[in-house]
Amino acid sequence: MRKIHVIGIGAGDPDHLTLQAVKAFGDTDVFFILGKGEEKVDLVALRRGMLDAHRPDGAYRVVEARDPERDRKAGGADYSPAVDDWRGRRADIYERLIAEELRAEETGAFLVWGDPALYDSTIGILEEVLARGSVEFDYAVVPGISSVSALAARHRTGLNRVARPVQITTGRRLADEGFPDGVDDVVVMLDARQAFGRFADRDDAGIYEIYWGAYIGTPDEILVSGPLAEAAPRIERLRAEARARKGWIMDTYLLRRRGDG
Amino acid sequence: MRKIHVIGIGAGDPDHLTLQAVKAFGDTDVFFILGKGEEKVDLVALRRGMLDAHRPDGAYRVVEARDPERDRKAGGADYSPAVDDWRGRRADIYERLIAEELRAEETGAFLVWGDPALYDSTIGILEEVLARGSVEFDYAVVPGISSVSALAARHRTGLNRVARPVQITTGRRLADEGFPDGVDDVVVMLDARQAFGRFADRDDAGIYEIYWGAYIGTPDEILVSGPLAEAAPRIERLRAEARARKGWIMDTYLLRRRGDG
Repeated sequence: MRKIHVIGIGAGDPDHLTLQAVKAFGDTDVFFILGKGEEKVDLVALRRGMLDAHRPDGAYRVVEARDPERDRKAGGADYSPAVDDWRGRRADIYERLIAEELRAEETGAFLVWGDPALYDSTIGILEEVLARGSVEFDYAVVPGISSVSALAARHRTGLNRVARPVQITTGRRLADEGFPDGVDDVVVMLDARQAFGRFADRDDAGIYEIYWGAYIGTPDEILVSGPLAEAAPRIERLRAEARARKGWIMDTYLLRRRGDG
Repeated sequence: MRKIHVIGIGAGDPDHLTLQAVKAFGDTDVFFILGKGEEKVDLVALRRGMLDAHRPDGAYRVVEARDPERDRKAGGADYSPAVDDWRGRRADIYERLIAEELRAEETGAFLVWGDPALYDSTIGILEEVLARGSVEFDYAVVPGISSVSALAARHRTGLNRVARPVQITTGRRLADEGFPDGVDDVVVMLDARQAFGRFADRDDAGIYEIYWGAYIGTPDEILVSGPLAEAAPRIERLRAEARARKGWIMDTYLLRRRGDG
């Protein structure tokens, strides 16, 4: 039976790797590295660096493939049709990789940024491949340091206040639905639209604080925190500059409302 | 200047330690180990085992202290007064530990289960000690694998559905306020009351699934998942048996509602 590791490799700092991840690296015959396009070449290099560091024996194969582009413009509030199609095309690729590049009795690994449990589709895609029934394998998940966890650590803050909830959501939802009820701490991932900006202009902007980070854990890391009204224009400027300079950006933030709780 | 590491050591599996945590271990003169009472002696032993593994040189000191008991019966929905008092007493202890046990130019470390950003008070207490102004130090946070992350990995599931939010909350809030609006995935920590039970008896119980785990990552790990109505009585029985056998329990779960989203 083929075996697969889905390995969370952390948010950008190679030292985010867990000992469990390093052991899984050591037990892998074929590493699958899926790039999303030219702009993410840095991220492919980061993964290659981890292999050099933790598999000095070199006794493994690397298979690189191109992740299909997602049509980000399609779909409604939750853009599920576009995502379903994208997921189907990814499943085609993963199915082919596992069937053709991994021999029986071998172990493959997918290296996932952050934590495979948060806004990552690898587990869902592997389940879809299994459901199709054309290729058999067993898989296990190695948890990783998410960008959420890394963000909080770098800002030396908790995600939740004492006995209070925290919600992790997308920029699209925060923009469309506003600040969720009953929650004072919201972590936003995948926010190309900088949804925090619409809270900075409101009359009650004074009750919000932001903890923002880009390229967390890498040499390019940028951190900004403070009252939202002051921090928002600064983040918008830094974000635009960094994006222009590097060609891509990965950022995350915690938006905190001074609570009634 | 004294230096302090707040190190997330993962959810119970010693291999959850990150390379960053191992480096911080190597750079520490004094490890502060705070136990909560007899029942958590296993957890103190786990931390001792990590020191043996990653500091074979033995060139460090360990200072054990007793964390004050929290009065869990006091307070209202958010039990803040009891928590404030408890935090104040903990700050007294931390202040004394840092002032008396850590010499100038030395580095101390607090080892935190899971991730210091999630339902842990170490960062807040250190900030309180700094605000008191009687002892100076600099501190940094090393993110860790949370029990949330470990739970999802062991169940091989994501925490969120595609483009949907996930909320992390307490058993008390879930019991008092019900399933939060606009969210289909809720992770519950600190649930001594097994709040999931009240969803299992409802007419719409069929729309809920649970992914539960106790002592995650340890040899005592117990995992249960499935439709809530079937899983709830099983979890309640296993939980009671395990608690009686070991004297303490640490468990976490993801409650998933079949969504409108």
